[in-house]
This record gives sequence, C-alpha cells and structure tokens, in this order.
Amino acid sequence: INYTPPITYITAPSVARAAVLKESSSLPEDMPQIKGYDFNQGVDHRALLQSFLTTGFQASSFGQAVQEINKMIEKRLEPVQEEQESCDSHSSASGCTIFLGYTSNLISSGVRESIRYLAQHRMVDVIVTTAGGIEEDFIKCLAPTYLGEFSLKGKELRQQGINRIGNLLVPNDNYCKFEDWLMPILDQMVLEQKTEGTHWTPSKMIHRLGKEINNPDSVYYWAYKNDIPVFSPALTDGSLGDMIYFHSYKNPGLVLDIVEDIRRLNSKAVFAKSTGMIILGGGLVKHHIANANLMRNGADFAVFVNTGQEFDGSDSGARPDEAISWGKIRMDASPVKVYADASIVFPLLVAETFAHNAARLIKEKNSD
Amino acid sequence: INYTPPITYITAPSVARAAVLKESSSLPEDMPQIKGYDFNQGVDHRALLQSFLTTGFQASSFGQAVQEINKMIEKRLEPVQEEQESCDSHSSASGCTIFLGYTSNLISSGVRESIRYLAQHRMVDVIVTTAGGIEEDFIKCLAPTYLGEFSLKGKELRQQGINRIGNLLVPNDNYCKFEDWLMPILDQMVLEQKTEGTHWTPSKMIHRLGKEINNPDSVYYWAYKNDIPVFSPALTDGSLGDMIYFHSYKNPGLVLDIVEDIRRLNSKAVFAKSTGMIILGGGLVKHHIANANLMRNGADFAVFVNTGQEFDGSDSGARPDEAISWGKIRMDASPVKVYADASIVFPLLVAETFAHNAARLIKEKNSD
Amino acid sequence: INYTPPITYITAPSVARAAVLKESSSLPEDMPQIKGYDFNQGVDHRALLQSFLTTGFQASSFGQAVQEINKMIEKRLEPVQEEQESCDSHSSASGCTIFLGYTSNLISSGVRESIRYLAQHRMVDVIVTTAGGIEEDFIKCLAPTYLGEFSLKGKELRQQGINRIGNLLVPNDNYCKFEDWLMPILDQMVLEQKTEGTHWTPSKMIHRLGKEINNPDSVYYWAYKNDIPVFSPALTDGSLGDMIYFHSYKNPGLVLDIVEDIRRLNSKAVFAKSTGMIILGGGLVKHHIANANLMRNGADFAVFVNTGQEFDGSDSGARPDEAISWGKIRMDASPVKVYADASIVFPLLVAETFAHNAARLIKEKNSD
Amino acid sequence: INYTPPITYITAPSVARAAVLKESSSLPEDMPQIKGYDFNQGVDHRALLQSFLTTGFQASSFGQAVQEINKMIEKRLEPVQEEQESCDSHSSASGCTIFLGYTSNLISSGVRESIRYLAQHRMVDVIVTTAGGIEEDFIKCLAPTYLGEFSLKGKELRQQGINRIGNLLVPNDNYCKFEDWLMPILDQMVLEQKTEGTHWTPSKMIHRLGKEINNPDSVYYWAYKNDIPVFSPALTDGSLGDMIYFHSYKNPGLVLDIVEDIRRLNSKAVFAKSTGMIILGGGLVKHHIANANLMRNGADFAVFVNTGQEFDGSDSGARPDEAISWGKIRMDASPVKVYADASIVFPLLVAETFAHNAARLIKEKNSD
Repeated sequence: INYTPPITYITAPSVARAAVLKESSSLPEDMPQIKGYDFNQGVDHRALLQSFLTTGFQASSFGQAVQEINKMIEKRLEPVQEEQESCDSHSSASGCTIFLGYTSNLISSGVRESIRYLAQHRMVDVIVTTAGGIEEDFIKCLAPTYLGEFSLKGKELRQQGINRIGNLLVPNDNYCKFEDWLMPILDQMVLEQKTEGTHWTPSKMIHRLGKEINNPDSVYYWAYKNDIPVFSPALTDGSLGDMIYFHSYKNPGLVLDIVEDIRRLNSKAVFAKSTGMIILGGGLVKHHIANANLMRNGADFAVFVNTGQEFDGSDSGARPDEAISWGKIRMDASPVKVYADASIVFPLLVAETFAHNAARLIKEKNSD
Repeated sequence: INYTPPITYITAPSVARAAVLKESSSLPEDMPQIKGYDFNQGVDHRALLQSFLTTGFQASSFGQAVQEINKMIEKRLEPVQEEQESCDSHSSASGCTIFLGYTSNLISSGVRESIRYLAQHRMVDVIVTTAGGIEEDFIKCLAPTYLGEFSLKGKELRQQGINRIGNLLVPNDNYCKFEDWLMPILDQMVLEQKTEGTHWTPSKMIHRLGKEINNPDSVYYWAYKNDIPVFSPALTDGSLGDMIYFHSYKNPGLVLDIVEDIRRLNSKAVFAKSTGMIILGGGLVKHHIANANLMRNGADFAVFVNTGQEFDGSDSGARPDEAISWGKIRMDASPVKVYADASIVFPLLVAETFAHNAARLIKEKNSD
Repeated sequence: INYTPPITYITAPSVARAAVLKESSSLPEDMPQIKGYDFNQGVDHRALLQSFLTTGFQASSFGQAVQEINKMIEKRLEPVQEEQESCDSHSSASGCTIFLGYTSNLISSGVRESIRYLAQHRMVDVIVTTAGGIEEDFIKCLAPTYLGEFSLKGKELRQQGINRIGNLLVPNDNYCKFEDWLMPILDQMVLEQKTEGTHWTPSKMIHRLGKEINNPDSVYYWAYKNDIPVFSPALTDGSLGDMIYFHSYKNPGLVLDIVEDIRRLNSKAVFAKSTGMIILGGGLVKHHIANANLMRNGADFAVFVNTGQEFDGSDSGARPDEAISWGKIRMDASPVKVYADASIVFPLLVAETFAHNAARLIKEKNSD
Repeated sequence: INYTPPITYITAPSVARAAVLKESSSLPEDMPQIKGYDFNQGVDHRALLQSFLTTGFQASSFGQAVQEINKMIEKRLEPVQEEQESCDSHSSASGCTIFLGYTSNLISSGVRESIRYLAQHRMVDVIVTTAGGIEEDFIKCLAPTYLGEFSLKGKELRQQGINRIGNLLVPNDNYCKFEDWLMPILDQMVLEQKTEGTHWTPSKMIHRLGKEINNPDSVYYWAYKNDIPVFSPALTDGSLGDMIYFHSYKNPGLVLDIVEDIRRLNSKAVFAKSTGMIILGGGLVKHHIANANLMRNGADFAVFVNTGQEFDGSDSGARPDEAISWGKIRMDASPVKVYADASIVFPLLVAETFAHNAARLIKEKNSD
C-alpha cells in the first residue's frame, strides 16, 4: 500500500497543480453572493420568494422576472402627458402597454384564474392566445375540467368520451354544451354580417363572445368589459373551428378576416409609450406578440416563461437574446426567460408583482 | 479488514436477496432482442438505419416511424375503386391522404430541401405550416440564409441587421427583397378582390405566391404546380403580416378569410379513404392537422417528430396517446413519436421511406 | 360569399359531428375540479401553494409532492415499538427513514440553505450526493459563490480564473483556499490509517470533514453533529479528488474503500421500518438511493424533482413508474415526480412540509 | 371594406418600416449557406450525412461533431517522436488520447455494439462509465435484453419480474445468472487480496471481469485484451454492488479503493500528447472525464452528446463553454455539443468517423 511512485510522477503533476490552482482576478464588489432562504427564520413566504434572487439557476431567473414585471407595472403607472393624450387618438393612455400571451393549456389549467384576475382589474393591455385559449375559458363556464393523470390510456378515455390535456380531463359533453351555446351566436353573427355589414375578425368575435358569456369567471368577459383586445389569428384551430365548420353547412357565409386584426395589433405596439411582453409558452402566442413589438423596434421589457429549448432552432425555445437580433426586444432591455412550467411559476409571479402591487396600493389608499 | 458481522446481519439481507433475485415470467418468444449495428460488417448506412429498430430508445422510435410512414405510402398507392371515384367528387383519389406539418424554422433550415422534394413529387397531399414556414421559402429564393452559432450576441447582430434563427443567420436585406417582390402581388390581389370578387383565404394566397415565385427551389411553387393545398390560418403572423400591414396604408382593403380554409382543410380529412399525419414540431401545425383528423374520428397513421415534453400539459409536447383520447388518432392506430430535432431525423426518415420507395419504383419500372 | 354547398357536403360531415360530439361517461363524483388561486382574496401564499393541487400540470405534481413528503414526516414521527427497538440493533428508531439525494449544483446554489436546515434539525436520515455536493459545501464556508449569467464566455472567465456553474460564478481562489484547508486533514487521515488501522470510506471521510469544518453554515457539520450518514461513492470525482491526487505525491497511501459503504447504505434501507426517498436531480444520486431501496423491495414513499425526460432511456429521466418495475419503489406506493428546476421547487417544498410541520409542532408545544 | 384610415395612421408606421426594413451589413464571403440534401440525386446516405453540416440546428452540430472526432483520429495517428517515447514511461504512445464516456443505458441499448467496435479495434484509449455501464455488458453475454415500450406499467412488470429501462425490458432472471457468474470471481478476488495482497480498485476489477467473461460480444473483454483502462469510481452503485453486498455476508473483506484509480485516470490526461473527449450522456461520466482533463489544463477536442439543458445549472446539461471556464477544455478548442439521444446519433457518428476511417485505411492498404 505504501507505494513509492517513480520520479517522473512526482514532478509531472505540476501542470495539473497550475491548472487546478490558477489564481483568479477579483470580482466586482457589488456582485450578489449566493445565499438561500434560512428556514430558521420560520416560514415567511414572501421573504422566501425574495431570497430566490440570490438562490441561483431558475430561482434567480424567477427573481429577475419579478423585477422585470414590476418595472413594467411602475412604468405603466407613470403619468402620461396631457398633450400627447389629446393629439394622438391612437397613442395609449398608459405609460407601458403590457402584452400578455399564453397557450391554450394554461386556460384549461388553474392558471386561468390568475389570468382572469389580470383581465378583471385591467392590469394588462393586450392579450394574444390560441383558439383553445379562447374556447376553453367559455367551456369552463359551462362545465368543469378535472384533475387526472398523464398516464391514463388514450383508448380507454376515448371509449368513455373523456379528453385528456396533460393531467387534466375534459368530458366530451362539455364540448356538446359549448355547441349549444355557440350556435345561436354564430347565427346572429352571420345575420349581422349580412344585414349590418359587420366585418368580423377574430378579435371582434372574441369580444362578442366575452359579452355573450356574461360570467365573471371568464377571462374574456372581463376583456370585453375592460375593452382589452384579444388577438387569436388562427381562431378556427380548435373547437371554435369545429363549430364554425358545422355551422357553415347550416348557415354558410361567415367571414373572419385576419388582416384587420394584424393592423390593430401592430398599432397597439407602434403607438405605445413603452411596452412589456409577458409570454407563457411558445408557438404562435410568443411569435405574434414579439413580431408586433418589432413594429416599434422592440419591446422595452420582456418576460418569457416556457419549457422550450433553443437547440432545435424553434422560435418557441429561443432565448430572448434571439429576439434582440430581430429588433423584437430593444438592444438595451434586460429580458428574462424562466425555464419552467407556467402552472407553478405564473401564479407566484402574479403574487409578487400585480397582486402584491394592488394590495400595496389599497393599503396606501386606506392609510391616507 | 476480516470483519465478522453479527448474526442479525447474516440473516437479515434475505429480504434483499429475495427482492433483487425475484424470478421472472417468460417473455413472448417473438419479442425483438436489443442488438445494435456491427461495424465489423463495414459501413452500410441502410443496414445501420435498419438496425435502429432493435437499438432501443429513440433509435427504435425512428425505426418505428420508418415503418409507420411506409404503411402510409403503401396505403396511398392502393388502387381506389372506380365507383367511389365517380360518385363522390370530394373523396380523394388516393388510398391515404398524407398531411404534412412543420414549423417555420425547418423551412429556414436545410430540411426545406426534403420538404420541397416531397412537394415536387406529390408525395404528400396536404401541407400545414406557420406564416414563417411560408415566407422563409420565398425569401430563400431571393437570397441565402447562413450558418452561424447559437451563442452570437443579439445586440451585435441587430446593430449589423442580421437576424438569428437558432444557429442560422438571415441578413435583414433579405426581408427588404421580400418586400420588393411581394408588394406588387398584394396590389394585384387587392385589385382582383375588388374587380373579380376574389374571396382570399390564406391557402389561396399561398397558392398564388407559389405561382408567382416560379422557382423550382420553392416548396410552394411545387405545391402550386401539383395542387397540394397549403394551410396557414395565422398567415399574418410574420413577415407576410408585416408587409400586409404596411401595404394596408398604401392600398387598404385586403381581406383574408380563415373560415373557408377551415372548411377546406376539414373536408380533406373527412373525405379521405384513410389518413396519415407527419408532423414536425409543435404549436399550431401539430394541433391544426390533428384537429382536422378529429373530423374523421382519427387519423389512421401518425408520426410526430419534436422535442416537446408532456409535463407542462402543452399540446406541443403531448404524446400521440393524448390525441387518441380526443379522437384525433384512431384507437387501433400505432402512432409514433420521435423525440428529436427534425433537422437530423427528418432527412433520414425521408431517405428510408419516400425517397427509398421512389428509387425502388424506378428500379422496378426499369427492370420491366 | 353566400356560397351554397353541394348536397354531399351537407350530409357528409355527420361523421365529423359524431366524432366531435361523442357523448361522455360520467366521471367519479369525488374527482377534483381544476381551480386556480383567486387573487381577489389577497396574496395568501400558503393558500396559493395549496391551490396548486387543483391547478393542473406540474403545479398539481407540486401539490402531490407536498402530500407525499408530509406522509413521510407523519410516518417518521410514529412511535416505534419498544420491543423492536431492543432486539434489533440495526433497525431504525424512526418510523420512516428518509433518504435525501441531490446533485452538486444544488449545494453551489442557495438550495444549500434548505438542505442545511434539514440536516441541522435532523429531519432526514441518510444523505447521498456527488463529490461536488460535498466539497462545495466546505468551500462555501471558506469563500462565497456569486450570481452571474449563463451566457458569460468561458474563455474570458478562464482568463480571469472564474469558474461558472450555470449562472453561478466561483472564483478559482476558493479552490486554493480549499486546498490549504484540506491538505493537513489528508495528512492526518493517512497517519491514522497507518497508525490506527482506520479503514477509510467516503462516508467516514465526509463525517470527518464535517467535524473539521466546525461551521454551522455547513450541511456536513450538521450531518456530523446529528450522525446522519452521507454517502458519495465517487468521492474522488471533483476537487476532493484533485487534492487527493496532489496529496498522493507528497504523502501516498490513502485508501478509500467503497465496499464498506455500500453495505452501510443498504443496511439503512433493509433495516428501516419504512422508507421515503426525496431525490433532487439525476445521475448517481438518484440511482444510488433507489438501488439501496431495492434491497427492501422498494421505498414506501418517493418524490423526485428533476428536469430529465424518459425518452433517452436514462435513469435520470425515468419516471418513478420505471423504478416500480425494478422493485425500487413499492407496487402500492404513490410516488411523485415534479418536472422542475429544484432551485424553485425545493425551497417551496420544504416550506410546505418540513418547515411548516416544525412551526406547527412548536406552536402546539407552546399552547400546551 | 374599403376603409380609409385616418391621417395619423398613414404616417405613423414609418417607425415600423424602419425597424422591419433595417439594412444589414454584409456577412463574410466564406460563410456557409444553408442547403439541405437534394433527394433528386437519389439516396446517397454518405452525401446526406455530409449535407447535415449546412442543414442547420442539430444537423449542423452533428456535422461539426464528425469534424471534431475526425480531428481527434487524425491527431491520434500522428507519429510520436522516438525520444519522447523512450524517456517517459507514462507518456502515451498515441498523438491523441481519446477518452470515451457513456451512461449505463447505452450499454443496455444497441449502442453497445458501436462501443464494442471501438474497444475491439483499440480506437479509444480510456473509458469511463457507471456501474450499470459495466454490469449490463456482462449480463448481455449471459441473456438478452428486449424491446418493449416506455408506457408499460411498472406494477405489472414487477409482478412478472421484468425490469424496464426506457423502452427496453430486462428479465430479472438475467440478474440471477449474473450472480451465478460473479460470486466465484468475488471469492477469488478476496482470496487474492488476502494471499497476494492485491490492492483492488474499480478499474482493476473491471479488467479482471473482462478477462473472465471471455466473450467477443463484450466491451470489457476487448478493453481487457487491448489494455484500455476502464474507470467507474462508483462501481458499487448497481447490480455489482448488490452482489458485493450479498457476498460480503458470506465472504467478507473485499476492499475496492478509489484513490489509486483517480491517480491512474488523471495520469492518463496529464501525460497525453493531446486529448479528445467523447461523452455520451451526463452525470458522473461527463464530469469525471472533464475533471481529469482539467489536470492538463483542458482537453484539445471535445464532443458531448446528450439531452441535458443548462437552465438548471446541472453539470450534465452544461454547454462545453462552461467547461472552458474551468480549464477542462482548452480556451482555443472548438468543442461540439449535439443535443440528441445518443442511440440515434452515436452509431451515425461512428459511421462517419472511426468506421469510415478504418474502411479508408483498409482500402488504401489494399491499393498499395
């Protein structure tokens, strides 16, 4: 065991020592040190979430996303100069126009309640989602979605008429109820098109449906009430499309134009004082908001929450820095991507930003 | 070192032995054994790719995808009964209608050449892609895309007017060239709408652009030539939308209707003898094809190639088994998902399926 | 526009209607409905985290993980029968032996403070980690780790002697300090081996280092104090190995035996009343704990938190259900995997389980 | 429809036009253009794989990995100066020492045959793997592994004694056969330790097992024959550990020392002329090879193939650029990471590098 190594062995690893024990330059003094939450303080959730900033990895990204969204909120509350307001009818009255985008599954999930809260209190200015992101909100007003498991067998579910969305279950009857609700509205829309020359676009249809649902649980009811435009250019890609398709055999002729909507969406970006993007998930909703913000040479603030990765060259997985190359985010912005399932992260983000801020404002008001 | 353990130690791990050395029931005799390629045979790429089926993990999924696509091709070549053909003008003349979907980035990449090959030789029947999946094909006819790196800095790229798509680079001048090409066509489209009452839809516009580009490198030139419908309901979500937006200030009025297209797409599925779906990537293209196939109570064959995961409940990452619960894939189908970047997998899939089959048919013809 | 479709069109989509509007069987009455947190209630973090159970996707998995860990804690507190305790010196005095595993990066991050809390209050019974998971804890007692960015350039960092771990930065000087601290201890270990016949194993070395660091910030100081064994069979795979390698030229002969440790670890599982596994990350730490639990025909409770996916056949990404096939988790268990970066999820899990429970116990005591 | 927009609308989007139509600087003339394979040439697999370099995304990474490995091979074949060879017994006789690492699952899969080919023809110099990466090779010499499905239920499999590894199935009887084979060897090892003072390390044990298996299908048979050292510091973490654990009750005393092995591994890096790393998967195998290469101030060449991502700060998912910050890869190297399941990519890499090169050398020899 007490083996004596040959002489070359003794001298040789000096290379190794030099490599391993290389000296370091000093780091800036104000660089944050990594330090997690100390539970010996007890369970103070807010302090815990604030400690995320110095916890590293995605916890730090969460902390940075909180800061970025709070910058949007602060900017949004800045007083807008009278002059500007009066001359330019297209300019936003808000100091920062916040674009919120999310994929359909988040409306199917309980993240819907967080989104509804933002729409209800007019905390965001523009919404972009997919067809499912629209219809699932209305369907949930008609019948509930349930918690299941990711591993339930498709064949058995189909035999029972139960649709699976990840670990959620939606009885197919919910879609039958949706048909019952939607068909008369489609009739009415066709009638208005024919008689009043209404030029329907996806955003106008969503506005109308939000009015019709007349239910405070609905995101789009509040978007309607608060006049928050909701864009969904591929509105036919889902149950709404199925119904429009069926309806077209009974009462053909409905036209949904996407040109007017792109103009309306782009104008929201072009005429904004500043803009912030909060985008949950990838695909169309991410690209559509970012592309609109290219029209103003980039968003000022951006938070992406998704699980996509850049290696396959998808827009969904692209880091915010790719959007900077396109002019979709400003060169001097500090965009944040949180790599996480939004079902965990978004409610926590809302808690530390919009909802916290609302509570703070109420408190300030009351103490006046 | 020669430690004698106490008596309890000696008897106790019988539990462990029983757990570790549990006997197994016998497996079916025809179960494939895992065996990889033996390079002592030399480098025979085709044999290597065939060995993937028994290599396990995604290599096996690749092998299963080859089989699934070859089933589509075989079915597609089956003779269609005369009778059916004559009475029903909407039924497809093909034994299997193949829906091909892909995200924009794949057209930006060299996967475009594989897709173009399929369109050129009319090997697929319906195409669904995003706005970028359309415009990037035309832009590549005007100027090239380059190979860069994922880590190039967005700010420096923006300063130089170079757009990044993963590790690809597209000079912004390419988009200026695209504008020059597109604007007169948009003028013409508006004119035709006004004078001839043309009811434009995204698929009609793509057909027209395919005609106008008149370039055999273009996917949509061949789609036009071979009358393969191409659906892209959110056609305004990209450079095409930017141009349509600019154009609307000079020459307003263009209408792009998505209702007629959903009817056309759904009919492709409803009236097909059987259908196969080949979907590269997630988001709109995956959902749109699958939803159309719900209209026929499910596709008969399906191959998904993407990097999405199911855990976040996204449609993009959902396993094919989720689509079975919805009736988008038949209960008795054997759909395959390959978890991989399509840039590696799709050209190899085409090699072992469509292109191999074409070579085989030519050889058979020549030997007659 | 008011196009009248041909007759076949009108009748045909009945297939489509039947497929889309398939009736559903009723779901069990007690199935949880999806419902997210309502911020109109104000920001109540605990209620928010409790609402995760019915939020869907990984939020629900988080909620299930809270339940699973609370079951471990409850079981662990169950009184153990006197009789058993007296006869069998190897049986655990606790009703549930909790195995905690984590990868090195989590010690580098602020998750270390959550782990230290668990060790300090003896809330877990066995720890398994990698070499880095050991040494980084000691190094942090000598000098801090900083928050940087994922995109900092490796070349520039190396020139400055700054090491990157994701978005963390560790000055190389920290490793020089570690060498200064460690070398005399290694001398002493070799001496004890030679003079007292100490049979060193990784777990014994970690125990000794925990004693030597004598710092309440250290996880392994508390593991030493509370006699929690820490296993790390590949203890040479990191800075500790570098130092042992250098040291072997000055003072050769140290032996680190991994056989005695596997026996010790397996005994922890075999002689436990019941066991729970909490595993953060993949690789060795996941496999090592699960393999030890095979020795008892499976753990009773299990929570995995990681970002791995199953498609590549890795043990890291395997779902808990794969471990059931091996007998590493009991067939009747309800293991939970949370697909997430542990830096966000683990502190929140500790808040809702160990720390909440500790606060509850203190409150109960005080109210007596 | 022929809506005339107000005047502000007409002038305003000039911002948008400027942002969208920003001019670009010219790119270097030699920058590769993106161009995929043209199947009109027929199916030429080698040309297809060569076209990957200009296909973009991971296809380009694959092409770069082929180049990087071919650089290793070329360097390895460079003649080594006589002088150096004679004076320094520790220096490698090869111009480039290639370290190959892989996780256990790849030995379970058909990738094993590619690895076996490399060992058989002594194409790599050092191997690092996990315990499972050792034992599964021997077990496959005793009984086969089968192709199953990822979704098979763990409970049913356990009841039948069938273990699942991703979509592979291993009957538990295979492990019983392994015990029968291993136990007498362990007896012999203990005997040699006691009588001859053999100082066992994991690498020595693997060498011995490779000799004992005496089967040309085995990777470690060839490693033994060709004197390729195989390192696996946590060799007890798997079935080998189970058997060593059981054996320790019958015939205690075996010592497996990991200190001698770290010295041996590090020396392989320190005394190499140049080094290349080929690492499939993450965890211990990735870190262990990279850490050894730190001892020489970095590897000259590196190829990583894995599915890990950097966002969680794991070493498994870290980009090669992180290893540069640590001095594990040289600052002037061009390391490549391919984000892919190795079951697809590694056999193709071997085809285009080691195997192609071997075929070329044979052809050149024959033509002399």
